[in-house]
Amino acid sequence: MERLDAVAAAPVRFEAHPSRYLHWRLELEPPVARLVMDVQEDRSLRPGHPLKLNSYDLGVDIELADAVQRLRFEHPEVRALVVASGKDRVFCSGANIYMLGSSSHAFKVNFCKYTNETRLAIEDASASSGLKSLAAVNGACAGGGYELALACDEILLVDDASSAVSLPEVSLLGVLPGTGGLTRVVDKRRVRRDLADVFSSLGEGVKGKRAVQWGLVDETVPLSRFAARVPEKARALAEQAPARTGPGVELRPLEGRYSEAGIEHRYVTLEVDASLRVATLTVRGPEEGEPGDAAGLRRRGSDLWALRAFRELDDVLLDLRFNRPEIGVVVLRTRGDLARVLAADQALVASRDDWFASEVRHHVKRVLKRLDLTARTLLAVVDRGSCFAGSLFELALAADRSYMLDAADGPRIALSPLDREGLPMANGLTRLQTRFLGRADLVDGLAWDEPMDAAAALEAGLVTFAPDEIDWEDEVRLAVEERASLSPDALTGMEANLRFPGPETMETKIFGRLSAWQNWIFQRPNAVGETGALTLYGRPERPKFNWTRT
Amino acid sequence: MERLDAVAAAPVRFEAHPSRYLHWRLELEPPVARLVMDVQEDRSLRPGHPLKLNSYDLGVDIELADAVQRLRFEHPEVRALVVASGKDRVFCSGANIYMLGSSSHAFKVNFCKYTNETRLAIEDASASSGLKSLAAVNGACAGGGYELALACDEILLVDDASSAVSLPEVSLLGVLPGTGGLTRVVDKRRVRRDLADVFSSLGEGVKGKRAVQWGLVDETVPLSRFAARVPEKARALAEQAPARTGPGVELRPLEGRYSEAGIEHRYVTLEVDASLRVATLTVRGPEEGEPGDAAGLRRRGSDLWALRAFRELDDVLLDLRFNRPEIGVVVLRTRGDLARVLAADQALVASRDDWFASEVRHHVKRVLKRLDLTARTLLAVVDRGSCFAGSLFELALAADRSYMLDAADGPRIALSPLDREGLPMANGLTRLQTRFLGRADLVDGLAWDEPMDAAAALEAGLVTFAPDEIDWEDEVRLAVEERASLSPDALTGMEANLRFPGPETMETKIFGRLSAWQNWIFQRPNAVGETGALTLYGRPERPKFNWTRT
Repeated sequence: MERLDAVAAAPVRFEAHPSRYLHWRLELEPPVARLVMDVQEDRSLRPGHPLKLNSYDLGVDIELADAVQRLRFEHPEVRALVVASGKDRVFCSGANIYMLGSSSHAFKVNFCKYTNETRLAIEDASASSGLKSLAAVNGACAGGGYELALACDEILLVDDASSAVSLPEVSLLGVLPGTGGLTRVVDKRRVRRDLADVFSSLGEGVKGKRAVQWGLVDETVPLSRFAARVPEKARALAEQAPARTGPGVELRPLEGRYSEAGIEHRYVTLEVDASLRVATLTVRGPEEGEPGDAAGLRRRGSDLWALRAFRELDDVLLDLRFNRPEIGVVVLRTRGDLARVLAADQALVASRDDWFASEVRHHVKRVLKRLDLTARTLLAVVDRGSCFAGSLFELALAADRSYMLDAADGPRIALSPLDREGLPMANGLTRLQTRFLGRADLVDGLAWDEPMDAAAALEAGLVTFAPDEIDWEDEVRLAVEERASLSPDALTGMEANLRFPGPETMETKIFGRLSAWQNWIFQRPNAVGETGALTLYGRPERPKFNWTRT
Repeated sequence: MERLDAVAAAPVRFEAHPSRYLHWRLELEPPVARLVMDVQEDRSLRPGHPLKLNSYDLGVDIELADAVQRLRFEHPEVRALVVASGKDRVFCSGANIYMLGSSSHAFKVNFCKYTNETRLAIEDASASSGLKSLAAVNGACAGGGYELALACDEILLVDDASSAVSLPEVSLLGVLPGTGGLTRVVDKRRVRRDLADVFSSLGEGVKGKRAVQWGLVDETVPLSRFAARVPEKARALAEQAPARTGPGVELRPLEGRYSEAGIEHRYVTLEVDASLRVATLTVRGPEEGEPGDAAGLRRRGSDLWALRAFRELDDVLLDLRFNRPEIGVVVLRTRGDLARVLAADQALVASRDDWFASEVRHHVKRVLKRLDLTARTLLAVVDRGSCFAGSLFELALAADRSYMLDAADGPRIALSPLDREGLPMANGLTRLQTRFLGRADLVDGLAWDEPMDAAAALEAGLVTFAPDEIDWEDEVRLAVEERASLSPDALTGMEANLRFPGPETMETKIFGRLSAWQNWIFQRPNAVGETGALTLYGRPERPKFNWTRT
């Protein structure tokens, strides 16, 4: 048992590479790529729950996220993606129920969040890079499996007795299709809400003609025509996509050093104070010699500061979520030169028509969204030596609060065109628009062309507090300590509300409304109690519910 | 103890009248009304938690809801509302913590929902009737007290040592300001999100100049000028409001008969099948002789079908929520004549410029919103003798599904101009727009001028299923029984997601995002466990948290 416990407690690592995939095959037939799900039952991330019937756990999704990312950077020749199954008569049966049933609440919540982010990455590849996707569904497509299909632009379903799409969570497990399922059915596919209700409470799902009529899939074909129809549809999707000139840019390994005390990457460092439950996350700005034009950017490849630094940040955020659950406060710091960050941003803006520069910007955008959705308090500390400019100033804008030292030779902050546009949040607004909700005049009136000292930044509303040297250390320390003493649940709920003022989108609905309800249900005895439906899944007993409705 | 239990189990009744208010005084000084909160400590709805410091429980809020409703119908001469306190140095200290701490999860959730609906009713009075409101805050204005102030159009705060606005829930109780607080701070008052973060994690709140600077209140005055400034501001608000010619229309008692078996009102009946956990809610259409013009509507007063039937429906919905928590499925039926319902709707539409007709329509709108937000499965059954037309067809549109008998002499449904506009949902769309999301063509193409039989209604997408005589009884029975067997929590979460596709508004954010997180927190051991913050409030022990962040 000891060994199993040790395995179970091993930290999760989020880097992957197609050469090491256990559960997916990435097959390239330009302009089409096929991503074939063929889950190895006995290679689950944690022991104890074989991944039968193409069910997935976090390890499966980490590989999926990697594949989508690599297609965008490494394979510009690919213009359409087919998501298919390597198994007979099952596309994907969703998240592994035994894994969910045996996981802690915090893990379930973070697993669903990561899976949601991965689904949204598939949609972002379509919306931002024109990498359209087709779910080629042969066999059962249930729960998270259908949610994966829903993330694709089109769904093709075999018309036979064993092929059906379904969301059996409510009827079989007493939980929600929480990886975007309910929201995508009505908001993305616009299935009529009463039909969505029938569908979502019907364990066996819907197949054939009815699935098309209700809008649950786009097309059905007999099995005999499936093999021919998939590439036909994929080529049609590829034709809609913009051409991207090669070669691709390899995403090289990050080679971070991980320990209990923190993480060291080239540009990003995490230092953990376990007793205070506080971590300091430092992002260093670019060194000298960053390229300024599209050709230079491509030559630098994945060593480009903007790409590497934000890949490292992404890795640190995921590590915090899964491996360091007790860290309540993350202090965001930067180190480096304002002007170099601005130049790096400017290089991306100047090359905006180059697909690689565009991919880098969209990657920065996605990592910042991951930051917005990280359920830890974020405090930005703008001190001497910091370089909160442009894309790095977004860290301060993402923070719940920011503190800037007010001193004669103190730090400055600066804005770049990337703060103006190009890095939207999940709500569709920039972080500046969100901060100054409905006050475009305040955004327009900012000092767009020159760095600001603490007094100017405070006056403009760009930082929360600007203590002077005398108060600085105490004020920052007190803010961190006070925050770390509050109820972690109340803070999670508060931050999830205050970080997303203004409009809501499908994306914010998935994280704010659907996930919040799913998290609620994930604690309810009717799901996870001794006689709850999730607990008893696969056993002969029937769940016993407390019938009180809330 | 037995007696206390009996008292505790007594059903809640939702009718109130100013002559019987325990906790509020309604003072009329046209064009201004003052609603003075002066809570009687020892008159809580349930024993065991004195309502100190103008804290409130459900009983206090029932009176508030009644007062706002009566002002709109009975006092057209009133054009501005001042919400004030009858206590010294305390405006309102929010929901009573001991009441919350000792309540069941379901009660807490429903209490917050009702309080939210009441706050929204204050805002609806302003938006729809021009009844502007001013929170006149002298003394502590904490938690739900500040949330009440936030529902007003303006907040005037005394500038002295004891007057502050605060949201101490996160820091003192480990829960959220869940009655709209967080959402209103950033989305309605547009307080910058980092300042909202500071404010919402600061137990002692914010006072004086800083409260104005941060946008938490509109104005502060010294105590010496407060008494004069309040009526000055109230009169200014009254001048913005449209004039409404009297006399008012008295809202007479409903005189329903309540039992374990159900409720009988004149137009609305509830019949409970406790063993199946199913209730049948029947709304009868108008009798002969309903008035057709504005003068006739006024003469009929609160006996007008549209007003009385929907007041009764409102009462039944609240009874279901609080007094019959185990009912999982509500079967919605109607009885009466299609043409008479259409005529009643038409009378409201024709008199739309008359304030009373307009108030009746807005009341119907609010009751239907309450239906949308009722966490029970709603199944509409369109059978022979039914009258699902116009405003009553909204019941079928609000339902999760609808079943319509397909027979030669079977039932018909019909649309009225009220389905086209005038009865928007919380998401700002009509129920038809929500049903046919993004498909205005489908809404335009409906048979607006003639009743539809089951085949036509099914073809138009207006009902979910249309079984024939042979299948009818079995299909409806099976749908009800299947639904009643599913996890009540999963259904609540599913319905909360599927009922509100499309855009989100402040209102849907309050119910969908904020409330879902609050419900999550309301179950967490860090709030309600033995060492949780809510449990230990007022005791010497400090809460002990599990620090895991989700």
